[in-house]
Amino acid sequence: MPLFDDVIPTLITDTPAQGRELAIMLARKTIASIQTDADTRAGLRYDYATDTAKLMQAGQIVAIEFQTIAAANNYWRD
Amino acid sequence: MPLFDDVIPTLITDTPAQGRELAIMLARKTIASIQTDADTRAGLRYDYATDTAKLMQAGQIVAIEFQTIAAANNYWRD
Amino acid sequence: MPLFDDVIPTLITDTPAQGRELAIMLARKTIASIQTDADTRAGLRYDYATDTAKLMQAGQIVAIEFQTIAAANNYWRD
Amino acid sequence: MPLFDDVIPTLITDTPAQGRELAIMLARKTIASIQTDADTRAGLRYDYATDTAKLMQAGQIVAIEFQTIAAANNYWRD
Amino acid sequence: MPLFDDVIPTLITDTPAQGRELAIMLARKTIASIQTDADTRAGLRYDYATDTAKLMQAGQIVAIEFQTIAAANNYWRD
Amino acid sequence: MPLFDDVIPTLITDTPAQGRELAIMLARKTIASIQTDADTRAGLRYDYATDTAKLMQAGQIVAIEFQTIAAANNYWRD
Repeated sequence: MPLFDDVIPTLITDTPAQGRELAIMLARKTIASIQTDADTRAGLRYDYATDTAKLMQAGQIVAIEFQTIAAANNYWRD
Repeated sequence: MPLFDDVIPTLITDTPAQGRELAIMLARKTIASIQTDADTRAGLRYDYATDTAKLMQAGQIVAIEFQTIAAANNYWRD
Repeated sequence: MPLFDDVIPTLITDTPAQGRELAIMLARKTIASIQTDADTRAGLRYDYATDTAKLMQAGQIVAIEFQTIAAANNYWRD
Repeated sequence: MPLFDDVIPTLITDTPAQGRELAIMLARKTIASIQTDADTRAGLRYDYATDTAKLMQAGQIVAIEFQTIAAANNYWRD
Repeated sequence: MPLFDDVIPTLITDTPAQGRELAIMLARKTIASIQTDADTRAGLRYDYATDTAKLMQAGQIVAIEFQTIAAANNYWRD
Repeated sequence: MPLFDDVIPTLITDTPAQGRELAIMLARKTIASIQTDADTRAGLRYDYATDTAKLMQAGQIVAIEFQTIAAANNYWRD
């Protein structure tokens, strides 16, 4: 399963900002693993980027992924 | 209940990527345990893979399952 | 309230698979405690098993219940 | 604010089943604190008990409340 | 940003019931910080108090806020 | 990715109120990173600020982000 090997060889990042980017990437790749056709995804992406409710669904998923990544990194406290 | 015995003999995986795949598999098998007819599921799968809101619902479930699996593995820190 | 006494005398299970089954059972019994009429529930069950969005709602609830049960069992690590 | 004093003088319960009942009660009282008119609530209750999506919304809230109560009780492990 | 300074000078409360009230207040003030017009909010409030699905959305937000506040207070165990 | 470097150089804040503001900012910037066109976002913002269900979606995302930030700060207990 090379898709996720590339995305999350580890959950550890240097900074919170990198952790946030990882959360976004992880959410995207999961969608890509469910809908594997790139053209279909491109259409869906336009759809959710211009629809408030869907855009927020995306934002919520990122928030949930970030919870996991932030915990993995001990919230970058140390 | 052989279905879940096969999917999660353990929550422990070697890598984050394998943990992610397990999260996806666990989500799918749960749906399968609720809707046991494979043909009906095939129709539903097409539906959610081409509908942004439903695709995101799927993504959110995976994110939640992954929280559990990542915690089980101490975030693959050690 | 004998309903939940029967379902969760304890949250501890021997295996992850049993924990998953408990999560599903717990979700179902909660619905049953809100909608106590079995015939009405039967109709609703058909509805959610054939509707992608609702099927995913069910999957998400199971994922959340499983988080609790998995934590209770220390993720079956020891 | 006597409403919640009555419901949660404590989050500690003797058994998981009592914890579950508390989760259901807590969810209900919160709705009651937002919609204070009992007649309106009665109408809404009929609505959500016969609508799959809403019934599941209720189930999900209970699952979330139960996470909190289960953690408070150390999952009734000891 | 005086709004939240007033609401959450601290997350610590004396009792679970006070923690619950804080969760409700915190949820409300967040809505107020997004929709700053009081008249518009008044209209929206009527809307969600009489619509089952929205009322439950409100209940779910309170449940999530309460998770945070309960954890902050060590579940009022000690 | 300068966007998040600016928002979350750290998750640590002095007070709960500042943590709440950070949660709101983090949610907003995530939306901005998905929908990068400011004019489109302005239209969407009006939409969600006047629609109860969407306003609550926003509130829920903030609640989830705040869970992470509050945990990072040990709930500002010490």
